[in-house]
Amino acid sequence: MASTAPKKLVELFYDVVSPYSWFAFEVLCRYKNVWMIDLHLKPVFLGGIMKITGNKPPCENKVIHSRKDVYRMSEYLKVDFKLPSDPSTTMFRKGSLKAMRFVTAVDMIDSSFTENVSRILWSRIHRNDEDITEVASFQLVGKQAGIEPEMLNKAISTITDATIKKRLTDYTEEALEKGAFGAPTIVAHVNGKQEMVFGCDRFPILANILGEKWVGPVPEIPQTKL
Amino acid sequence: MASTAPKKLVELFYDVVSPYSWFAFEVLCRYKNVWMIDLHLKPVFLGGIMKITGNKPPCENKVIHSRKDVYRMSEYLKVDFKLPSDPSTTMFRKGSLKAMRFVTAVDMIDSSFTENVSRILWSRIHRNDEDITEVASFQLVGKQAGIEPEMLNKAISTITDATIKKRLTDYTEEALEKGAFGAPTIVAHVNGKQEMVFGCDRFPILANILGEKWVGPVPEIPQTKL
Repeated sequence: MASTAPKKLVELFYDVVSPYSWFAFEVLCRYKNVWMIDLHLKPVFLGGIMKITGNKPPCENKVIHSRKDVYRMSEYLKVDFKLPSDPSTTMFRKGSLKAMRFVTAVDMIDSSFTENVSRILWSRIHRNDEDITEVASFQLVGKQAGIEPEMLNKAISTITDATIKKRLTDYTEEALEKGAFGAPTIVAHVNGKQEMVFGCDRFPILANILGEKWVGPVPEIPQTKL
Repeated sequence: MASTAPKKLVELFYDVVSPYSWFAFEVLCRYKNVWMIDLHLKPVFLGGIMKITGNKPPCENKVIHSRKDVYRMSEYLKVDFKLPSDPSTTMFRKGSLKAMRFVTAVDMIDSSFTENVSRILWSRIHRNDEDITEVASFQLVGKQAGIEPEMLNKAISTITDATIKKRLTDYTEEALEKGAFGAPTIVAHVNGKQEMVFGCDRFPILANILGEKWVGPVPEIPQTKL
């Protein structure tokens, strides 16, 4: 018998510049039909979170280790990943501000496309070493996500509008209020309380918080009962 | 039939000031008779690692989150833990330099006591809110660990000797050479290669590296076959 308990809200605050956000996103997308959760994708600007919290870039030994760790985690969490050929230029100099405004514009018009658009942007930057800063790239991403030309043009043309900028800032500030200092920031709403979990390595903890079971990075999707 | 393959060396570089080091230590101590590993405990001085790598203390939001995360991890990894009543005084102002010299002195005389002495020091600072800086504390710890008075007095009286200081420095430098930027730093020796893993949240990754299976924080200990 299917449970009649309401689904628990889980918010994922993410930026496509962050590989660990991608891994958390894919695992949560797999689990959203396994655990009783309502997954709410909330695009933020990681650069803003780092700046406002004063979270400093890591020391050299940590950077060297991260470049190994990110591959190990991608393998463990089964996300096909490859660092961009020039990570610091791609991730820090070019960055993701325009991309996250594009995700926000799509999300505000029709949030059913947010998951696909985000995944395709991640695949571009963190698998295929492709651009995520140009209008031409957003055209390709939108098309690949199945967005109709009219909606896509509207989304792209509003990227620099105040309402889009404001919503991205609002979500970024919301993440900060909930304790973010990086991404992914995951917030589970349970029994009237909000529990923040950071990173893509706390799924057993998140499962405990939700009263659910962590069965590894690729859960079996339960079959729909007819 | 018991495997005749030689055990794989796993080094744990740790400091008793670090709760996450304690959690990694307990999990590895549980697994040392489950996985085919030879666990080598290597006491280091975390303060030195942080200073030399330039690894900065975390921003405020991260500190707030860590104080929650450390309890969640202790619960998940089944280590009975409580933060000291005044964490910054205990962990940063008083620190662990003398304690780690004491562990080193014990380790150099008879390394069979290193595990127990470390565990008791962790229990004092990170469960019972007790001192780990005074000679009287080291007397209690040594006695509780079952060290004979003669050896214990020898260990305590040599804490400030150059050989003890040098060995602590040597292990700390060795950790740095292996890429450490904090603790716990775990180094697995597999097929002539050394693989460094950081933290107490990478056990599935460590298992992969070792070709072993991660079965959660409390594995069943295999029964000795007669």
